[in-house]
Amino acid sequence: MTALEIIAKKRDGEKLDRDEIEFMVLGYTRARIPDYQMAAWLMAVYLNGMDARETAAMTETMLHSGQQLSLSSLPGPKIDKHSTGGVGDKVSLILAPLVACTGVVVPMISGRGLGHSGGTLDKLEAIPGFSTRLSLRQFTSQLREIGVGMMGQTRKVVPADRKIYALRDATSTIASIPLIIASILCKKLAENLDGLVLDIKTGNGAFMSTREESSALAEGLVATAKRNRLETVAVVTDMNQPLGLAVGNWLETHEAIRALQGEGPTDLMRVTLHLGAHMLRLAKKVQKIEQGLDELEGKIANGEAFERFMRMVQMQGGDNRFIRNPHLYPPSDFEICLDAPQSGYLVGIDTQAIGRAVVHLGGGRETVKDTIDPKAGLILDKKIGDRVEKGATLARLFSDRPSIEEIAKQLRSAFSILPKPVTPAPLIGEEFSSV
Amino acid sequence: MTALEIIAKKRDGEKLDRDEIEFMVLGYTRARIPDYQMAAWLMAVYLNGMDARETAAMTETMLHSGQQLSLSSLPGPKIDKHSTGGVGDKVSLILAPLVACTGVVVPMISGRGLGHSGGTLDKLEAIPGFSTRLSLRQFTSQLREIGVGMMGQTRKVVPADRKIYALRDATSTIASIPLIIASILCKKLAENLDGLVLDIKTGNGAFMSTREESSALAEGLVATAKRNRLETVAVVTDMNQPLGLAVGNWLETHEAIRALQGEGPTDLMRVTLHLGAHMLRLAKKVQKIEQGLDELEGKIANGEAFERFMRMVQMQGGDNRFIRNPHLYPPSDFEICLDAPQSGYLVGIDTQAIGRAVVHLGGGRETVKDTIDPKAGLILDKKIGDRVEKGATLARLFSDRPSIEEIAKQLRSAFSILPKPVTPAPLIGEEFSSV
Repeated sequence: MTALEIIAKKRDGEKLDRDEIEFMVLGYTRARIPDYQMAAWLMAVYLNGMDARETAAMTETMLHSGQQLSLSSLPGPKIDKHSTGGVGDKVSLILAPLVACTGVVVPMISGRGLGHSGGTLDKLEAIPGFSTRLSLRQFTSQLREIGVGMMGQTRKVVPADRKIYALRDATSTIASIPLIIASILCKKLAENLDGLVLDIKTGNGAFMSTREESSALAEGLVATAKRNRLETVAVVTDMNQPLGLAVGNWLETHEAIRALQGEGPTDLMRVTLHLGAHMLRLAKKVQKIEQGLDELEGKIANGEAFERFMRMVQMQGGDNRFIRNPHLYPPSDFEICLDAPQSGYLVGIDTQAIGRAVVHLGGGRETVKDTIDPKAGLILDKKIGDRVEKGATLARLFSDRPSIEEIAKQLRSAFSILPKPVTPAPLIGEEFSSV
Repeated sequence: MTALEIIAKKRDGEKLDRDEIEFMVLGYTRARIPDYQMAAWLMAVYLNGMDARETAAMTETMLHSGQQLSLSSLPGPKIDKHSTGGVGDKVSLILAPLVACTGVVVPMISGRGLGHSGGTLDKLEAIPGFSTRLSLRQFTSQLREIGVGMMGQTRKVVPADRKIYALRDATSTIASIPLIIASILCKKLAENLDGLVLDIKTGNGAFMSTREESSALAEGLVATAKRNRLETVAVVTDMNQPLGLAVGNWLETHEAIRALQGEGPTDLMRVTLHLGAHMLRLAKKVQKIEQGLDELEGKIANGEAFERFMRMVQMQGGDNRFIRNPHLYPPSDFEICLDAPQSGYLVGIDTQAIGRAVVHLGGGRETVKDTIDPKAGLILDKKIGDRVEKGATLARLFSDRPSIEEIAKQLRSAFSILPKPVTPAPLIGEEFSSV
C-alpha cells in the first residue's frame, strides 16, 4: 500500500477501504505522507466523493489520531450541540448552561470565528478574564461540579482534524460534504457523548446556502454518527438573516445574557429552546419536544439558567461584574445608525455582507492571526418582514475604527426594502434523527 | 487573483484563462505557490480536464518559464522526433544521424528511462565515454558541424516542466492528456523547430494502451502544436510487443548500430523510416512519404548514416571502438535462454512485463536514483505471429544478477502460445498532421 496507489484509486472514482483511509490520514498526521500528496488526495475526495462507509471510516480514523475525553465517571447523560456556523449565532452561550440545569452534562468544545461567521470562543472571551484554555482535567472537574464547561480544541484531541483542516483551507477543498462530516463528528466523538444535536444552518449567511445542500449534510452527519454509534439529531435552521439582533462578540454575549434572563429575541429563543428540547430527549429526560420546551422555559423563568451561566463564567475566570451589569462594558469610540433610504418592507438581508461588515468594524478575523475588538459589531433594529419607514434605523454600528462611516455606507445595499412584504423562510426546517 | 480562487475554478469545472494558468505555473516554478496548492490544482486539472485553448496556454507558459534554444543561425530546417516511450524503442539512435545525412538539422533533447520503459540517454550512455551533458553552446556547435546531437534536458530550458513533472509523479497525476501534451510540447517548442514528428506508442507496453486513447493524445498534440505555430505530424505506432528484438541499453544500442549498417529488424526499420520520411516532408526535402523512404534507405545503403552516427559518438566523447566492433563490449556474468513450454504460435507478449524484467535484470530504474547496468537486458528470438516449437528459445536474458533464473521463470507467463496464429496489430496506425 502506497500513497500513490491510494491517490490513484480515489482519482479513478473507486471506493477506499478503512486501511487505505487510515494510511492516508494517520500517515499525514504523523508527517510520513507529505502535504502535496495529501492535497492531491483531498482534491480527488472532493471531486469523486466518499460513500457512507468511507465517510464513517474517515471520521473514526481521525478520532483515533489522538486522545479522547473520558467523562464516564461523571453522573448524568452527556449531550452536546454543534452548529455549522452563521452570523449572530450565540445559541451555545444560552443553551449550554440552560440544559445543564436539567441534570444533563454539556461538555462543549468550540471553535473560533473566521471570515464572516463568528465563533463561540471569541464571544466568551469578550468577557474580561474568561479563559477557554482549560486542561482536560480542569474541564472534567468543572463538568462534575456544574455540568457545563466551554473550551477550545486541544492539541491532544483529534490532531488529524487540525492538520487536515488547515490543508483543506489552503487548497480549496473545504466544501466537501464527507470531509465536513468527518471533521465535525471526529471532534464530537472524542467527547464520548451520549447524544449530539446538530444545528445545520442554511441560507445566505451559512456555509450551505440551499435547503437541499443543508439537508444532504444533515442526513450525512446523522448517518455517519449512527455508524459510529452516536445518537444524533440534526435540525436544519434558517440563516437568511442573523439569528437574534446582535452581531459582534460582546454584543452577542450581552444578548445571550438577556436571553438567559428571559428577554431574548423570539427567533433566537425558538431555535435555542428547540435544540435544547432535542438534547433533553436524547438524554431521556423527556419523551416529547413539547415537554422539553416547557422544562427549559421554566429554568429561564426561575433564574436557574442565568445563575448557572454566572457560575460558569466565575469558574472559567471571567469577571461577573460585566454579566450582572453589562453597561459597565466600555463603549466603542464610534456609533452610527444605518437609516432606511425608503419606506416599505424589509424583504431580505445579505447575511454574509453583515458578517463581513462586522469583520471590517474590527469584530472578526480575515486571517487566523488577526486580533478581535470584542466591542465592535452591529445591532439590527429591523428583521425580515418588518415594516420600515424612510429614515428609520435599520441597524446601529459600533467600532473604534473611523472607517465605520464607509462601512455603513457599503452595508446599505445589504438590506432589501420593497413595497410589499414577503413571508420569511421557516426558521426551523427539516430534521434528521438516528433514534 | 489568488491560487485558492484558481484552484476552486478548475475544481468547479470552469475554464481558466491564460493569466490564471500563468499565475499557477510561473508561481509554482518560482516557489511563490507551495507544492500542496499546485498538487490540488493538478488533481483538479486531471479530473476536470483542459480544453484546447487552456492546453495551448499551459504549453506556452511552461515554454516561457526558461530559456529557448536559438538555432536560427544554423543552415537547414530543424526537425525533431519525439516518442511517448515504449519497450525496445531505439528509433532515435538510428533516425537522428540518418535524417541529418539529408541536410536536416536534428537537435534531439531526450529523457531517461523510468519504470518499464527505456530512455534514449541511457542507451547512448551505454557507449563508454559518451556524454549527454552538453552545454547549449557545445550542442549548437556540434549541430552546425554534423547536423545532429543528442543531449539531456538542461536546467535552463523549461524549468516549469521539470518541477511540475516531479510533482505529478508524486501525486498520481501523470496520466492527464492536457498535462502530457503541455509537458511534451513545451520542451519541443523550446528547440525552436521547423517541424516535429511524434511517435505515439499504443498497446500493452505503452503509456496509453488503447488506440482510442493514443489517437486522442496524438490529435491533442497536433492541435496544441498548431496553436503554438509548430508544424507537427503524429503517428500512432504499435507497442504490443517490443520494437525490434533487443531490450536493454547496450543491447539496443548494438541493434541500432546494426540497423544503421542495414541489418535492422523489419518492424524497427519500418517505423524508423516512416517517421524519418515524415521529417523529410516537414523539412520540405521531399513531397511524398515514398520519396523520403527511398532517400533514407539510400543513406543507409551507402554507409553515410552509420558514418554520421560514428561522428556523433566521437564528438560526444564516446569510444568508437565499441561501435566498430560491438563484440569488444564486456559480456554479462549470466546468460540464460527462456524456452517455449509448448508448440504453437506466439500470439501475445506482455510488453510491460518484458520492460519490468529488464529493470529486474539491472537494465532499468525503479526510482530515479537507481543506477543502470548497461549490459543487462534480453533479446527476443520470436515475435508475435511466429511459429514456435516446444523447447525453442523465446528469448535470451543477460544479467550480472544471480536472480536471473527467477526472473526468467516469472517471465514465462509474458509469452502467450496458442495452437493457431493471430494477425498482429498494424505496426503503423492513425496519423494526424497540422499541415
